[in-house]
Amino acid sequence: MLRFDSDYMAGAHQEILDALVRTNRELTAGYGNDPYTAEAKALIRKACDAPEAEVMFLVGGTQTNATAIDGILAHHEGVLAAESGHIAVHESGAIEASGHKVLTLPHTFGKVSKEDVAKYIEEFYTDETYQHMVAPGMLYISQPTEYGTLYTLNELEGLSEVCHRHNIPLYIDGARMGYGLKGEGADFTLRDIARLADVFYIGGTKCGTLFGEALVVCNRSLLKHLFPLVKQHGALLAKGRLLGIQFGELFRNGLYERIAEHAVRLAIRLREAMREAGYEVVIESPTNQQFFRLKNSVIDFLRNDMSFDYWGPRGEEYSVVRLVTSWATTEEEVAEACRLIASTKA
Amino acid sequence: MLRFDSDYMAGAHQEILDALVRTNRELTAGYGNDPYTAEAKALIRKACDAPEAEVMFLVGGTQTNATAIDGILAHHEGVLAAESGHIAVHESGAIEASGHKVLTLPHTFGKVSKEDVAKYIEEFYTDETYQHMVAPGMLYISQPTEYGTLYTLNELEGLSEVCHRHNIPLYIDGARMGYGLKGEGADFTLRDIARLADVFYIGGTKCGTLFGEALVVCNRSLLKHLFPLVKQHGALLAKGRLLGIQFGELFRNGLYERIAEHAVRLAIRLREAMREAGYEVVIESPTNQQFFRLKNSVIDFLRNDMSFDYWGPRGEEYSVVRLVTSWATTEEEVAEACRLIASTKA
Amino acid sequence: MLRFDSDYMAGAHQEILDALVRTNRELTAGYGNDPYTAEAKALIRKACDAPEAEVMFLVGGTQTNATAIDGILAHHEGVLAAESGHIAVHESGAIEASGHKVLTLPHTFGKVSKEDVAKYIEEFYTDETYQHMVAPGMLYISQPTEYGTLYTLNELEGLSEVCHRHNIPLYIDGARMGYGLKGEGADFTLRDIARLADVFYIGGTKCGTLFGEALVVCNRSLLKHLFPLVKQHGALLAKGRLLGIQFGELFRNGLYERIAEHAVRLAIRLREAMREAGYEVVIESPTNQQFFRLKNSVIDFLRNDMSFDYWGPRGEEYSVVRLVTSWATTEEEVAEACRLIASTKA
Amino acid sequence: MLRFDSDYMAGAHQEILDALVRTNRELTAGYGNDPYTAEAKALIRKACDAPEAEVMFLVGGTQTNATAIDGILAHHEGVLAAESGHIAVHESGAIEASGHKVLTLPHTFGKVSKEDVAKYIEEFYTDETYQHMVAPGMLYISQPTEYGTLYTLNELEGLSEVCHRHNIPLYIDGARMGYGLKGEGADFTLRDIARLADVFYIGGTKCGTLFGEALVVCNRSLLKHLFPLVKQHGALLAKGRLLGIQFGELFRNGLYERIAEHAVRLAIRLREAMREAGYEVVIESPTNQQFFRLKNSVIDFLRNDMSFDYWGPRGEEYSVVRLVTSWATTEEEVAEACRLIASTKA
Repeated sequence: MLRFDSDYMAGAHQEILDALVRTNRELTAGYGNDPYTAEAKALIRKACDAPEAEVMFLVGGTQTNATAIDGILAHHEGVLAAESGHIAVHESGAIEASGHKVLTLPHTFGKVSKEDVAKYIEEFYTDETYQHMVAPGMLYISQPTEYGTLYTLNELEGLSEVCHRHNIPLYIDGARMGYGLKGEGADFTLRDIARLADVFYIGGTKCGTLFGEALVVCNRSLLKHLFPLVKQHGALLAKGRLLGIQFGELFRNGLYERIAEHAVRLAIRLREAMREAGYEVVIESPTNQQFFRLKNSVIDFLRNDMSFDYWGPRGEEYSVVRLVTSWATTEEEVAEACRLIASTKA
Repeated sequence: MLRFDSDYMAGAHQEILDALVRTNRELTAGYGNDPYTAEAKALIRKACDAPEAEVMFLVGGTQTNATAIDGILAHHEGVLAAESGHIAVHESGAIEASGHKVLTLPHTFGKVSKEDVAKYIEEFYTDETYQHMVAPGMLYISQPTEYGTLYTLNELEGLSEVCHRHNIPLYIDGARMGYGLKGEGADFTLRDIARLADVFYIGGTKCGTLFGEALVVCNRSLLKHLFPLVKQHGALLAKGRLLGIQFGELFRNGLYERIAEHAVRLAIRLREAMREAGYEVVIESPTNQQFFRLKNSVIDFLRNDMSFDYWGPRGEEYSVVRLVTSWATTEEEVAEACRLIASTKA
Repeated sequence: MLRFDSDYMAGAHQEILDALVRTNRELTAGYGNDPYTAEAKALIRKACDAPEAEVMFLVGGTQTNATAIDGILAHHEGVLAAESGHIAVHESGAIEASGHKVLTLPHTFGKVSKEDVAKYIEEFYTDETYQHMVAPGMLYISQPTEYGTLYTLNELEGLSEVCHRHNIPLYIDGARMGYGLKGEGADFTLRDIARLADVFYIGGTKCGTLFGEALVVCNRSLLKHLFPLVKQHGALLAKGRLLGIQFGELFRNGLYERIAEHAVRLAIRLREAMREAGYEVVIESPTNQQFFRLKNSVIDFLRNDMSFDYWGPRGEEYSVVRLVTSWATTEEEVAEACRLIASTKA
Repeated sequence: MLRFDSDYMAGAHQEILDALVRTNRELTAGYGNDPYTAEAKALIRKACDAPEAEVMFLVGGTQTNATAIDGILAHHEGVLAAESGHIAVHESGAIEASGHKVLTLPHTFGKVSKEDVAKYIEEFYTDETYQHMVAPGMLYISQPTEYGTLYTLNELEGLSEVCHRHNIPLYIDGARMGYGLKGEGADFTLRDIARLADVFYIGGTKCGTLFGEALVVCNRSLLKHLFPLVKQHGALLAKGRLLGIQFGELFRNGLYERIAEHAVRLAIRLREAMREAGYEVVIESPTNQQFFRLKNSVIDFLRNDMSFDYWGPRGEEYSVVRLVTSWATTEEEVAEACRLIASTKA
């Protein structure tokens, strides 16, 4: 079975696994007070050109979002996010469980516009009853989005400008940041992210590590007591070095980029095979998630040999599906998938 | 340097690491919906002789305690715990952050008595103002305790009986459960734990895995919606199989017992060396944590070659220190430590 | 100045104030343990034909909603409400502050449909990822709504049926319940409310008391520990009898109905004056809140002698305004307002 | 029956009730945006000699404590309080429900010492594991305490100095502040309180009003968004003027002082009667709460005509009881009580 369901189906990239094996018997202090973690933090600061940023490693994405957002917001504030945002839909109410409302914005394939952000904030403060409402306290976006789409550098700059003009921080969920940085036509860098966002995270779970996300706090005044906050959220790993070792590998020799380039290239090969077979690409995604409209009979046929996500029906005869690649997807798997797709051509 | 600071300084036991390496490239569904997790759950149910229990794997101890306790308690209830309990002291307020008070009880080297539990509950309900106070809603104990001590089977039965007579559940924090089960003179089994506790967890982080704790819910009515609760607490690992694979190894071939026997045996060798050298054993611990009163000059001398925890001064000339062994401690390290200790004999 | 801004601008109805004055020097037990509170509870149970219901008096509406909803919902659940619902918009995130998401539904002038409720619940449980999402745990509606509109008995029965078929409780915010019961063409009674809702509250603040809301828990299994829950939410009044005395007056001699009839009758007189003057009634409200579209020049003219709420522009020349009556509105004030309105007729 | 159970058994002082009656039919804006509230705030600022302080009126004490403490503390912080503090014992976990731990200190009849506060903070930060523990984020004291005792000005200055030296705010619960200010030998003023505390509240419920507490925020940077915080805590009264009117009366013509002088004087008469009858005064309370050790047979006898609080047994034959006076206690009642007490003399 060729599996394109998601980008967290395998373990870790071989170089990362090797590092874990190599260091396994070493004895180090816990909770991130080890040299591997220190080195990984330094590497990330350097990659972001953010020498003053605080870097903290957490285990998973929902945990990272919930911890950072809870730490940033004041009691009376909520977080602005696309209606499709991960925190708005798929985190089992983790944001609300920490006391904060998710204030939703309209979106285009997962992206919000600076105009809508500005409008929300401005209308909020002109509402006579605004003191009885939840104030917009920060903006959450994901890069790439849940639909695989990317904000351009210009769009990121616009959002950052709107946020800072209105004095709210910009937070970027980078669960798949790598696949974005190496996305087709991507025009932004990690340095841009660090320059434009106040806080963001670089995802490891979906980009090569067994698990782990690197939270980067550029504007340190927003999260002054990060260590106990992380501990209180149950997000502090006892053997913190496991995170340091993995992120060290990702950022020491360009592994993060290599992983992302590989996955994006294979995703585009799948997309081209779909286009050549005459199928509609329903979202123009430049990253490792691709969305297609297929006849249900084609879906049934492909499912004999391939697995992927079902995103919902389009009329009686068609449906939309999502195919995802990762560092673990092989050239052979994609070649075989392309053959299968081509074979369904009418 | 011989390191006896804690039992979470190394990676994973070799058999567990091998299993992670062996399965690394397999592609499986996320969030625990994989065959490794299913098998590990079955092995744990069997080891506990609790075929109806729900088993859920989480990443760390504070996370597991906070999630389970939050799920069990009603709004107006708090959790009874020893003043020295991990949740009362060392979890950065994670229990309170989820809305619940930790109601503290006196203790003897980490252990609470059934008399004190009964007294607390009975006095609570005879207080005329009890409706204005936090009701005792469950009992938290750790086995072994934070001081390495163990409840006897008789004591566990007494606590269980008191709890159930007063209609509150018994929860056992088993971060070091293995080292307890194989503790010197231990007279309880995992089946006893499952029979007497309503909910408990079997710790992996300190007993051989890279990370991970197995929450066992014997009384399933207490935690009816465990999956979204875990997700909401940011405690759901995307690659859930990593937990299943590790606990499968621990429970398939007696590895959990072998690890614990090894560590306890070495801890006792250290204790005997200390006794022979004339040093006071300050807590009668039958497990992998040992506590000694040493002259400060002896501590300074040993620290040239050994590391361990400092627990505080005893007068001007003496201090108490803690030495901890684990699966990763070697015979050679202990032999060398014993030689060093013997050499300090007056 | 004739004031129609809201229904909480005056103190208490004279009969209620008299009762407070009459009883002022009596000495009674606190926290609702007094005979006045007991009698008021009995009167409300009788008015609702709900002899088994628990009645609890709280101080204000946001407080009552937040306390009841927090008490009813499990951790992983949220509350369904109209996008315009008070809890969704105007309670400063009080629901989220207690850990729960407000799940919004489309609405028609504040009313949700049973079809939309059913659709939400059914689609939720057919979503493959529903365990990662917030489960619909109860339905919140207001009767009358924030727009003054009323659910018919048939609609209430439909909503109740849908809720109970899907095993979620129905909660009704009755901040202005009285004005609904005596609304034009209203076909439901308090007994219907108590029969169809699991929990609801009867508002006092806007219907004659200085303050106070009577929470009626028909399905007592939903809120088993109400007293400490109310205390924990800071919602327990020390001199609880003040609530008992006021609600006793409201329900002893038909005062609640008299107050509501009076206010609704005057609101309809205002509406007729507006219609006769040729102005558009923008919401068909049968209760004490009325909404009109007026030329901005007319608004400016009226504001010399009248005050009311501005609800927003309609194009360049027109705006919508809200006029509200209450027990405190006098015949004379309305007659004078009608004269003013008539004088603006083109 | 002569009732000395508590100081919240009657309604409001006549002057306050008169003001409520006098203003009842006036129509004003809600939520505290009325001239009565503005005037009352100004009067309190003046009484405190704190022209820059923010004043906010809330309904009850638990609510005020929970709102202010939640607003002041950061996530990782808890509130230091005496083990006997109201927030530690009698608020049904309201502080924990908002996410914060109450860190308890030893006390002498309700009072904590500056030495113990300093020791707690200093030991906390020298603990190697302090980042895993709840940081002391503020100090809560009550003046008078739950035992009727008073801090001297010197003690208050010492506590304030210790707090500010360690950079944590001092919060004073003044539920019975009036009875403290007029306590026997009291050497502090409201101006001292405002000078030494960062935030405190002046209680109305127990000192003359129907309900209401005036929160005074001297250090405004601690509670920057007070209005939505209060609303979110369900603590915003719709008819906010009711609080303004009542506190206006209390602070316009010295009523607050007159009420307190009256109650304290009567409490001392009761104490002297007890002393003369040979009974032990168990707490040296200079305020309106008095504590005596009586023979159980004497208690039984007195209870035929008097009511008061039972505080617990002292051996087989004796018990401690509490008698409380208030503005509502009359000279005649106390004279009669004194006769009864004298009649029990052996």
